[in-house]
Amino acid sequence: MSTEKVEIFDTTLRDGEQVPGCKLNTQQKLKIAARLDELGVDVIEAGFPVSSPGDFSSVTEISKIVKNAAVCGLTRAVKNDIEVAARALKYARKPRIHTGIGTSDSHIKYKFKASREEIIERAAIAVEHARRYVDDVEFYAEDAGRTSNEFLARVCSEAVKAGATVLNIPDTTGYCLPEDYGRKIKYLKDHVEGIENVIISCHCHNDLGLATANAIAGVMNGARQIECTINGIGERAGNTALEEVVMILRQHPTLNLNTDINPKLLFDTSKMVSREMGMLVQPNKAIVGANAFAHSSGIHQDGVIKNRETYEIIDPADVGVTESAIVLTARSGRAALAFKAKKMGYNLTKLELDVVYAEFLNFADAKKEVADADIHTIMEIYRKSSRAIA
Amino acid sequence: MSTEKVEIFDTTLRDGEQVPGCKLNTQQKLKIAARLDELGVDVIEAGFPVSSPGDFSSVTEISKIVKNAAVCGLTRAVKNDIEVAARALKYARKPRIHTGIGTSDSHIKYKFKASREEIIERAAIAVEHARRYVDDVEFYAEDAGRTSNEFLARVCSEAVKAGATVLNIPDTTGYCLPEDYGRKIKYLKDHVEGIENVIISCHCHNDLGLATANAIAGVMNGARQIECTINGIGERAGNTALEEVVMILRQHPTLNLNTDINPKLLFDTSKMVSREMGMLVQPNKAIVGANAFAHSSGIHQDGVIKNRETYEIIDPADVGVTESAIVLTARSGRAALAFKAKKMGYNLTKLELDVVYAEFLNFADAKKEVADADIHTIMEIYRKSSRAIA
Repeated sequence: MSTEKVEIFDTTLRDGEQVPGCKLNTQQKLKIAARLDELGVDVIEAGFPVSSPGDFSSVTEISKIVKNAAVCGLTRAVKNDIEVAARALKYARKPRIHTGIGTSDSHIKYKFKASREEIIERAAIAVEHARRYVDDVEFYAEDAGRTSNEFLARVCSEAVKAGATVLNIPDTTGYCLPEDYGRKIKYLKDHVEGIENVIISCHCHNDLGLATANAIAGVMNGARQIECTINGIGERAGNTALEEVVMILRQHPTLNLNTDINPKLLFDTSKMVSREMGMLVQPNKAIVGANAFAHSSGIHQDGVIKNRETYEIIDPADVGVTESAIVLTARSGRAALAFKAKKMGYNLTKLELDVVYAEFLNFADAKKEVADADIHTIMEIYRKSSRAIA
Repeated sequence: MSTEKVEIFDTTLRDGEQVPGCKLNTQQKLKIAARLDELGVDVIEAGFPVSSPGDFSSVTEISKIVKNAAVCGLTRAVKNDIEVAARALKYARKPRIHTGIGTSDSHIKYKFKASREEIIERAAIAVEHARRYVDDVEFYAEDAGRTSNEFLARVCSEAVKAGATVLNIPDTTGYCLPEDYGRKIKYLKDHVEGIENVIISCHCHNDLGLATANAIAGVMNGARQIECTINGIGERAGNTALEEVVMILRQHPTLNLNTDINPKLLFDTSKMVSREMGMLVQPNKAIVGANAFAHSSGIHQDGVIKNRETYEIIDPADVGVTESAIVLTARSGRAALAFKAKKMGYNLTKLELDVVYAEFLNFADAKKEVADADIHTIMEIYRKSSRAIA
């Protein structure tokens, strides 16, 4: 069975930037856009052009420099938004307009104070209007996660009829369980008219910690685009993390799905985005956290030293991390100490190791981490004491 | 249909502490243990007593102070480990010994250099030995995620026969997809002899960002205990985050599952653990991140102001956060500005808002966040200019 491609739609510069305190200037955005293009993403959502003059000019400048990816601008289902986006995307080699409207009862009632029929009409008009300017129009059904599948299929059918090339099914509030989100995508595959000619896209939020699992459930049920951000940043608890979905598809070949991402750039891209935005990545972040490949417990260190695959499913080098970091703490066992000591030039016999290990534990109980310099001190203490006994 | 209880097994002080640079002293561990007890966890895994003198004494002291939860000590399938753990748990009201062995081919071959039959024998001997000291023995089949279901069911059946009360099925390397992990739990429910008398426990790692989804797939397929940590800390990319699984079960009543956790303590407990361990929580962390309930984009702020449920599935007060933080940035719309201005005493007409908003965007494009003080400045500029025009 040949593998099918899942398109990676990166929204680091739009949904990812929608974060308190993370505003980037145009120069920073250009730097990140160039890197995303090099990383191999299929679409770069560069901003929401009508939202501010700064955003408009960023989308314009990004459109000029991106070589491979499509460049996308967000709009509401509002003619002026669409026209402004079209102007901002003028220089893009592959321009995409992303337009849409809320479809859940909560959005229709409280946000739009409209009827379901009016929502369908506004959706169709927006897509048609966008198609006057570009060939590639993605329609989003905001809060699709809480929209009934039947109504969602109706809205999507009309959007396809109006010319949409991609249907974005956002779990805007991050409420869905993976089973439910997967079922929703399957329902649309089975019920939207003309679905065979368009791509379904997953856009999942992380409010319950399920954004990655939901996106994977989506592609397992027929979606072929994932919207995601570097480090999973974004509104509230953020979006699906690009590095996570890319590595899941890579590590699970039985899914028969692949992306065009070059994983060797993942770690460095994570650091770049974190630095430019001032958004910290927690040490226990999957794939790109500082500890993602660090082993500190004795049992684990012993296992990794015997065979890396005992505890590591990903070779750190595959995502651009140069080696598994063995960090010595009070949890470290004799194997890790001996391994580290050997790397530093001390070959210990089993008996020597027992004595040195006892001294090591004194250090480790007093300190958080035992550094290389401490190992030299421990060895010095050991040598003096053994000489004294002899 | 009445709801069934899922036990929460907190391993913040064992697997969570297995993190480079996060070693806690006994005083800090006692403080966290007391809070976990107050939070309502069912089991506190307090440490790995044989691993170091510090760990032994922490487990002893924690056993003395915990009032409601069971206190658990980790061991390998080694007699001395089990005896040391039993001694450390001497003062616990509800002591539990957690013993086990690797069951995947990779662990059997590289770590233990043993045969499958030897592994089964060692598992049974360890469980029996632990049962001499305590009535509550949890057996872990390390790397169960990569163990064939058939062999896993055999090992588990023998562990139950030997007296295990809980079967822990760890996805040690964080490799499983939710569907696969759920199927594994279902297989064990259907094939382990005596399974009706024991609890199946999920212990999932986050290497691919799926720890939370896997634990939920586990309980949806019959597991009734989740092993987790505050903030999802732990070895490498960490464990299932306690706050995430608790809120998923709470927000999804159709699952008919509940826990005894008091969610109002979640946010404060997260901060306490982060502070004591020096482990940062990223702003986009689900439930407890600084931005988890912050809305900065115009569309979202407008929605939340009209009706909180448009974009928030959890009332921040439910997890101990006092209010949704509306942070003003270049992404904020007129509604957010008007809302904030009103809170500060400025009631703006629609026309006034248009002018003030233009000035606001100048500030916002220049700054990352527009602070309350800036709003006063903007209003002052507006008043002066409108007086000049008048």
